[in-house]
Amino acid sequence: MSFDRLQEKIDKLQNPTVVGLDPALESVPPQILKKHIAEKGETLAAAAEAVLEFNIGLINALHDIVPAVKPQSAFYEALGPMGVGALKVTMDYAKEKGMYVIMDGKRNDIGSTAAGYAEAYLGEVQIGDTKISPFDADALTINAYLGSDGIKPFLETAKRYDKAMFALVKTSNPSAGEFQDKYFAMEDGQQKAVTDAKTLYTLVGELIEEISKDTIGDYGFTRVGAVVGATYPSELQFLRNHLKNTFFLVPGYGAQGGSADSVAAAFDKNGRGAIINSSRGIIAAWKDMSDGDDYMTAARTQALMMREELQKVL
Amino acid sequence: MSFDRLQEKIDKLQNPTVVGLDPALESVPPQILKKHIAEKGETLAAAAEAVLEFNIGLINALHDIVPAVKPQSAFYEALGPMGVGALKVTMDYAKEKGMYVIMDGKRNDIGSTAAGYAEAYLGEVQIGDTKISPFDADALTINAYLGSDGIKPFLETAKRYDKAMFALVKTSNPSAGEFQDKYFAMEDGQQKAVTDAKTLYTLVGELIEEISKDTIGDYGFTRVGAVVGATYPSELQFLRNHLKNTFFLVPGYGAQGGSADSVAAAFDKNGRGAIINSSRGIIAAWKDMSDGDDYMTAARTQALMMREELQKVL
Repeated sequence: MSFDRLQEKIDKLQNPTVVGLDPALESVPPQILKKHIAEKGETLAAAAEAVLEFNIGLINALHDIVPAVKPQSAFYEALGPMGVGALKVTMDYAKEKGMYVIMDGKRNDIGSTAAGYAEAYLGEVQIGDTKISPFDADALTINAYLGSDGIKPFLETAKRYDKAMFALVKTSNPSAGEFQDKYFAMEDGQQKAVTDAKTLYTLVGELIEEISKDTIGDYGFTRVGAVVGATYPSELQFLRNHLKNTFFLVPGYGAQGGSADSVAAAFDKNGRGAIINSSRGIIAAWKDMSDGDDYMTAARTQALMMREELQKVL
Repeated sequence: MSFDRLQEKIDKLQNPTVVGLDPALESVPPQILKKHIAEKGETLAAAAEAVLEFNIGLINALHDIVPAVKPQSAFYEALGPMGVGALKVTMDYAKEKGMYVIMDGKRNDIGSTAAGYAEAYLGEVQIGDTKISPFDADALTINAYLGSDGIKPFLETAKRYDKAMFALVKTSNPSAGEFQDKYFAMEDGQQKAVTDAKTLYTLVGELIEEISKDTIGDYGFTRVGAVVGATYPSELQFLRNHLKNTFFLVPGYGAQGGSADSVAAAFDKNGRGAIINSSRGIIAAWKDMSDGDDYMTAARTQALMMREELQKVL
């Protein structure tokens, strides 16, 4: 099962890290961007090629020590259709190098539209008699605000093609609690005591575990994981205890303030069931050290440090 | 202001309709798909070109009677980077024909990532000294589960480039209420009486109106509109009364069961402040009538019927 393969890659490399490939242009070493601008002018095509070169260097530098990458779709979409082309080639290259690919798109919709996103990133489209995988990620992030109608089409595709997803549950940002931390008053028309009340993030977490309970793999996790931020350690601890069959994707480590101690609670008693994301802290590590010529070395050094920090708490 | 321009287009054509350009391949007349497959084989490129030809025909057939189009990103992403290219050309062509373009992507994220999506669809990216608009829609749909951190970056870009957005508030699908209809128990640590309690969709609606209140345009609406489904008429009525400065995008008309009567409540006392979406009911109208050769006539006929139905209740 998809998350079994992810867990096995993590176990093999002894590293529960996913590197976020979030290539904002200011994270790309300027000499790479300049080279492509010299060839193609100040165009989206030049920027997309620079991003692709940067990503290939990062994947070359990291694939033997980091099990997974998480390209953040926004930064590719910001370069137009050619940026999306760079996303596709990046994903193919990461898979070729043995990495697990989590497409971070936070997609959400219902019915045939949700099925369209699922086909795009996890499944196949049929053109005449030919089936084609448009992007073929291993997993996709989704947003569950629309309820189970917005999860089931993704889950059906994930089952058919042995893929997985992560739904936003408790996010890492300061305003995450504006909606996610609210307690619900009523159920079935009855007001509940506050001690029985549940937060929105708890309800979302319970729904995703319930809806996917027939998909539990070898390590005890279903195909629908949860995004739970490193910046809220007590909620992370609560959710780990409450959602025993849910694999966690944990953003917020590093740049957003999460530490190895604060993510320790994401793992189950066997040290499994979670992967910790770092983006800028690794891909833009060169900025603290150099002019960018050695961005690969800088990324590898930071990734090794992160692995060491995580190993201490596991 | 962006929604003023939309309202003026609606007023001019006396038609508060937006046509959803949701080109699932089964909605494209088979002879169009076959023609492009004959040229390019059973490829994503052939499918993307077929979708583009279909869209151009629809825009030609509709632009003088319908003020706006809403391309649904999923169906373009499902055709890979070339599908996203067809999305871009479709959007450019619709604007050239004078239509208001709502990109339906339900995008959501925080910080620089949300800013990346905003640049992609509403703003510009800077490459060297050159600024480029990657997609340049008039408005974008967003999902507010992440709270105000997930809205502000879009709003900042919308202000800078005179654009707008629609946040999901109360969606049209059967399971919309699983989270959106829940009542909140506590505020500032105090349990509230059920009579004071608010649903999640009310809280989301209140947040988007509050966060954008300094952006009210000539017709009384802010830059952050709300998606409110036609399939829940009493909630639609409540939200219209409650969110006086919020422009509504109303899906669920036609195929999902919403009628002209059920969307009447979306409009303010001047008959303004809402636009009603129809997708398959218009773009795939040819399926009930013919083999697809006259898909443009079929779409125009249905769009005229919808305009007539809406005019009766306005």
